[in-house]
Amino acid sequence: MGEENKVGTYNFVAEPFHVDFTGKLTMGVLGNHLLNCAGFHATERGFGIAELNESHFTWVLSRLAIEMEEFPMQYEKFSVQTWVENVYRLFTDRNFSILDKDGKPIGHARSIWAMIDLKTRKPADLLTLHGGSIVDYICQKECPIEKPGRIKVTSVEPVGEYVAKYSDIDCNGHVNSIKYIEHILDLFHIDTFREKMIHRFEMAYVAESYYGDKLTFYREQISDNEFDIEVKKNDSEVVVRSKVIFKN
Amino acid sequence: MGEENKVGTYNFVAEPFHVDFTGKLTMGVLGNHLLNCAGFHATERGFGIAELNESHFTWVLSRLAIEMEEFPMQYEKFSVQTWVENVYRLFTDRNFSILDKDGKPIGHARSIWAMIDLKTRKPADLLTLHGGSIVDYICQKECPIEKPGRIKVTSVEPVGEYVAKYSDIDCNGHVNSIKYIEHILDLFHIDTFREKMIHRFEMAYVAESYYGDKLTFYREQISDNEFDIEVKKNDSEVVVRSKVIFKN
Repeated sequence: MGEENKVGTYNFVAEPFHVDFTGKLTMGVLGNHLLNCAGFHATERGFGIAELNESHFTWVLSRLAIEMEEFPMQYEKFSVQTWVENVYRLFTDRNFSILDKDGKPIGHARSIWAMIDLKTRKPADLLTLHGGSIVDYICQKECPIEKPGRIKVTSVEPVGEYVAKYSDIDCNGHVNSIKYIEHILDLFHIDTFREKMIHRFEMAYVAESYYGDKLTFYREQISDNEFDIEVKKNDSEVVVRSKVIFKN
Repeated sequence: MGEENKVGTYNFVAEPFHVDFTGKLTMGVLGNHLLNCAGFHATERGFGIAELNESHFTWVLSRLAIEMEEFPMQYEKFSVQTWVENVYRLFTDRNFSILDKDGKPIGHARSIWAMIDLKTRKPADLLTLHGGSIVDYICQKECPIEKPGRIKVTSVEPVGEYVAKYSDIDCNGHVNSIKYIEHILDLFHIDTFREKMIHRFEMAYVAESYYGDKLTFYREQISDNEFDIEVKKNDSEVVVRSKVIFKN
């Protein structure tokens, strides 16, 4: 298979209710599009959720890092490319490029996925699935952003609290991956987004949370433009960690 | 122009993060799709927001009523048809049909729009715009659901409170029309959506709210399955009213 055939390309337009008050596509919607593209790309190659569910496996998103130089603006067309960078026994790395309407890269993203057995909830061995054919999709395309790093928050002073509601819950009964992104960005004052843009956004999905769970948000400022965030449920377990890096 | 050419048809698929915990497309996402279709249809006919803005006019959504017999389920294709039913001096009625993957109608919607002059914030006369050519798009297609009715809430006991955050604000600086839908449905316990489905949902957009506004939610139960909701900002002005009718 040629390297070109290993890359999936999907077209979008920045819809009016998908941009923020500055007219930029929101990080939540972008994350949603990336995860959808991952789904399209995997499905087209026989590794989609629907096929996996039949054999009682599913994909679980572990890490997501998105780095943008600029954002698609309201009504602008843009596209997302995605490909598989690596496959290990328990994880696979899937990367993304975000291209503007003229095909110029304006951002990139990295994601790390595990596969679990729905019956045992244990990780599955990716290298034995479908006779190991997933490695045929590994592609040598460059993704010029750093891998997701370690995020460590020591603050014990909450900066926000939120009880998970109907609209937060996905069809697996969990608070959905995209809603965390919205709730985390809502910790910041709107003026932050007026003066700066989000340059890099990282999510580490650690545990699931459910309807009615009390989510508590802790934030630590690392430098002028860099913030680490930790979300705990019901005053105990860490659910997600996140890093937000703004640029002026 | 034939009646068929007056109807715009747009295709969608129910994405994983756009369905609720029962696998049904959420009312918020459906509302978003309807408003987008209104935009596509108007733009294709020279009455889109972008063209209007150039002549310092814009569309303002006043009422929305959606009535569903069933909802598209995760990964299912569906389509939305939209057309103009009536044009009056200050308002226009735009209707919708929601069709399932086989083209069978599974729901309908009605919306009422005004046009305002962005300089004066006053309503514009639709019958003089573009020499009155908007009436050429009036279409005789049936929309078998009731028009939006009057909603009146007398309860003075709040059932919820929410301060508008970054993610709520659209590019006009207002809390966006779709976010109200989410916040209103979040007043209900998740079990309501387990046991019942939303049959009809109405929104009356009365005034704008902004970042930092405190939204207070009042709810009145009209019958077993019918609820009227009123949202006020900062303990005074009514922002939106809504009616939710469930069916078992």
